[in-house]
Amino acid sequence: MSAKEVVAAYWAAADARDWETFGSLVAGDMLYEAPQTRERVRGRAAYLRFNADGFPGDWHIEVDRITGGERDAASLIRFSDADGTQSGVCFFELGADGLITRITDFWPDPYEPPANRAGLTERY
Amino acid sequence: MSAKEVVAAYWAAADARDWETFGSLVAGDMLYEAPQTRERVRGRAAYLRFNADGFPGDWHIEVDRITGGERDAASLIRFSDADGTQSGVCFFELGADGLITRITDFWPDPYEPPANRAGLTERY
Repeated sequence: MSAKEVVAAYWAAADARDWETFGSLVAGDMLYEAPQTRERVRGRAAYLRFNADGFPGDWHIEVDRITGGERDAASLIRFSDADGTQSGVCFFELGADGLITRITDFWPDPYEPPANRAGLTERY
Repeated sequence: MSAKEVVAAYWAAADARDWETFGSLVAGDMLYEAPQTRERVRGRAAYLRFNADGFPGDWHIEVDRITGGERDAASLIRFSDADGTQSGVCFFELGADGLITRITDFWPDPYEPPANRAGLTERY
């Protein structure tokens, strides 16, 4: 599988709560980091707990796009739950065996643009 | 140039305020969108104005990583100015001529993680 295909399978498994498939796509010593919260998770077992237990409630993931090369990729998803829909961006690194070794995760929230840009953009 | 190389040249030109090179990398009818603010800029001329005038002060861009395929890519950068350093994520689409046709831009801010994840992650 290409890096893009691995990432597509990762999100499909997450959305299906298929933690066995999900775990089979990440390396045993994988590293997850969320720079916004400075959260870090080390290793497949801890990462499975984080995903299975860290996001309670009923949620759904829709993949907006995936781009990637031989051993890396990035995805843009929409995470929807009872609170609404949130965009999520992940960067992935893969090992030579095709397993995901590193995930860097971002959740960008809406904000108001600075006043000086008002004449330079449209709003939608 | 590969999509990754085009994106590397795009950030180098932005950091150098080399708007001529910067403009030569984007299509005349390019589309920029920032989903967090719902800002949109259409076309090369407006996009050059947005970049030259929308970000006043002295700033510096450092590329953390770029991933990409034939006609798309994503970048993670650090934007530093007098206010500090901010991570930025962009997704790029390129045309068959190698010019950037579409940019989707995210600026994820720090936030506090929910309490239920405390036992599931380390903090760094």
